[in-house]
Amino acid sequence: MLNFSVFHKKESNASSQRILKMNGEAVSLKKGKARVGRIETAHGIIETPCFMPVGTKGTVKGLKKEDIEATGAQIILANTYHMMLQPSAERVQQFGGLHKFMNWNKPILTDSGGFQIMSLSGLCKLTDDAAIFRSHIDGAMHVLTPSRSIEIQHMLGSNITMVLDQCIHNPAAHKVAEAAMYRSTRWAELSKNSYKPRKGYGIFGIVQGGLYEDLRRESAKHLVDMEFDGYAIGGLAVGESQNEMFSVLDYITECLPENKPRYLMGVGTPSDIIGAVERGVDMFDCVMPSRCGRNGRAFTSAGQLNIRNAKYASDCNNLDSECDCYTCMHYTNGYLHHLFKAKEMLGGILLTIHNLHYYNSLMSIIREHIRNW
Amino acid sequence: MLNFSVFHKKESNASSQRILKMNGEAVSLKKGKARVGRIETAHGIIETPCFMPVGTKGTVKGLKKEDIEATGAQIILANTYHMMLQPSAERVQQFGGLHKFMNWNKPILTDSGGFQIMSLSGLCKLTDDAAIFRSHIDGAMHVLTPSRSIEIQHMLGSNITMVLDQCIHNPAAHKVAEAAMYRSTRWAELSKNSYKPRKGYGIFGIVQGGLYEDLRRESAKHLVDMEFDGYAIGGLAVGESQNEMFSVLDYITECLPENKPRYLMGVGTPSDIIGAVERGVDMFDCVMPSRCGRNGRAFTSAGQLNIRNAKYASDCNNLDSECDCYTCMHYTNGYLHHLFKAKEMLGGILLTIHNLHYYNSLMSIIREHIRNW
Repeated sequence: MLNFSVFHKKESNASSQRILKMNGEAVSLKKGKARVGRIETAHGIIETPCFMPVGTKGTVKGLKKEDIEATGAQIILANTYHMMLQPSAERVQQFGGLHKFMNWNKPILTDSGGFQIMSLSGLCKLTDDAAIFRSHIDGAMHVLTPSRSIEIQHMLGSNITMVLDQCIHNPAAHKVAEAAMYRSTRWAELSKNSYKPRKGYGIFGIVQGGLYEDLRRESAKHLVDMEFDGYAIGGLAVGESQNEMFSVLDYITECLPENKPRYLMGVGTPSDIIGAVERGVDMFDCVMPSRCGRNGRAFTSAGQLNIRNAKYASDCNNLDSECDCYTCMHYTNGYLHHLFKAKEMLGGILLTIHNLHYYNSLMSIIREHIRNW
Repeated sequence: MLNFSVFHKKESNASSQRILKMNGEAVSLKKGKARVGRIETAHGIIETPCFMPVGTKGTVKGLKKEDIEATGAQIILANTYHMMLQPSAERVQQFGGLHKFMNWNKPILTDSGGFQIMSLSGLCKLTDDAAIFRSHIDGAMHVLTPSRSIEIQHMLGSNITMVLDQCIHNPAAHKVAEAAMYRSTRWAELSKNSYKPRKGYGIFGIVQGGLYEDLRRESAKHLVDMEFDGYAIGGLAVGESQNEMFSVLDYITECLPENKPRYLMGVGTPSDIIGAVERGVDMFDCVMPSRCGRNGRAFTSAGQLNIRNAKYASDCNNLDSECDCYTCMHYTNGYLHHLFKAKEMLGGILLTIHNLHYYNSLMSIIREHIRNW
């Protein structure tokens, strides 16, 4: 029960002030499928297309609430898999839910745990009903069923709950992708049946099917029949090329309802995002801006840079001359370089702030361009 | 050329609102030598007694400028030894000095490098003119003379420059302490001769002499004759008991001019600080609140606690019911415990904020008590 308004056309007469860039070059957004929208949640409005910073363990690494907000974040993502293992969903519920626990009053989306069970845990067994796996923290055995995943996300208090799905790596054989898609479809139904609707909260289905058009179309059809509040496209950015990803997006967004948000999970680079918006995607999440930031890599309007590079030791410029984030307003590249060389955590914090601001600004510029068509 | 005004007596009729506590127990400050004062620097006023958070490498670990200011910090300390090795004083000067480099507009005190040469580097040779040592970072050989230490601190743009001294561990034989004291006296003179006075900036001498009263008194006499802007008491908190430290303070502050600030270097616990203020000390610095914070140890009005303790997992309280710092206003012990268990850097950041706020509040309460006598 999430209200979603979508607009494809010119909203105002204001012309865009900002240039959309990709790797330092001005680009124009292809008209057609790109759209702006507005999701109304119990914790506020999300303007789409939007990017969701990742707060895996109930914290966007190193950032206080005000720091995250100042990057322009409208919603963050937290990981069900991590939270269920530590400190546990019951614990978070005891503290009044994840919003209160982590001091974040804006919307939260939680994934279902499916992706991390594949990528992080020692997966022991998949049945039609459950994933049985070992915790990557202490090796303890856990069972996650679709209904338990939903129950956990209810306890966390997520504004957007994701169905439990089975992820596979690309490329995968057709029969492997098919089996995973059917299992995911079944789990989506079980997830939806366990979900308790509330105003301002919603549940998204996840389209699977690997790189196979027949499977993707079938997956989408089943999910649309189940009537979700939004639809995610899963199983991309897991080994395939950008072209392969785009060719799935080329047909799959049209298989999804016009009046529901579309979320491309775990994507991606600025170029991935621009291409996906052009193909009708509304929501994104990725660890890239925060993880790269901690490792010294910055996204800028002139392309990427690595602040550890020796040439920055004497550089009095800021990361990005076109950026007005906290980092660019206060710190030179020379100081940031020093922090990384000296292994000081403030370096990773300041680059995370910049990169998230870069991503959120990119989304804001994209929205501006779509509105001004 | 630092203006210092000192007051021993009641300044106003306002009665103290806050209780001075030590390990959870209310204590009263012994009247007599304790005093409040005000140091005017080119970067603002420092009210004493004061505590200086340590920003070793040009950053108070994990904290942005606003975070540091919100703890009530009036001045921070940076380490000459670390800055000269990385990124080098010349580099910092290129960026307009340490204030600009690190985005800190309030006063900065830099130590001289003497203590770190003893404690961190591979010390190779001490002569009457210089310390020759190997960098703890890359093993490169460095020579630090008194005049070079002062030159470095000039390049950093420190508001308060410290003379180069030779530190020894306690206990030390009388002749060892005596030789170090004489060398430090000579180095103090060489340091002073190299120092270029400017309004709003000053240089402090450092009293040495181990735990020997004759040596301490002689050291103080020589330094007072040289007329510094303030006087530090060095070579304490390096192996001796609190009683031994206090018995040095019992006589040494009286050997120093009434109208100049007195700074006890590298000290200490709240109890150390209260005892030293009672003995006439005005300034303190210590890594304890920040280092303990990063390790999960919090200072509170009820005493110390370790947030990693399992009992905090379900604790909905804040670190300190009497504290209004950012951490205590926004986060439960349960969340902080989770961050430490999950090895999330936000935990260390939030406890550092709390601990520095605790120390700065302690100093503020102490000033209030002295003013209200």
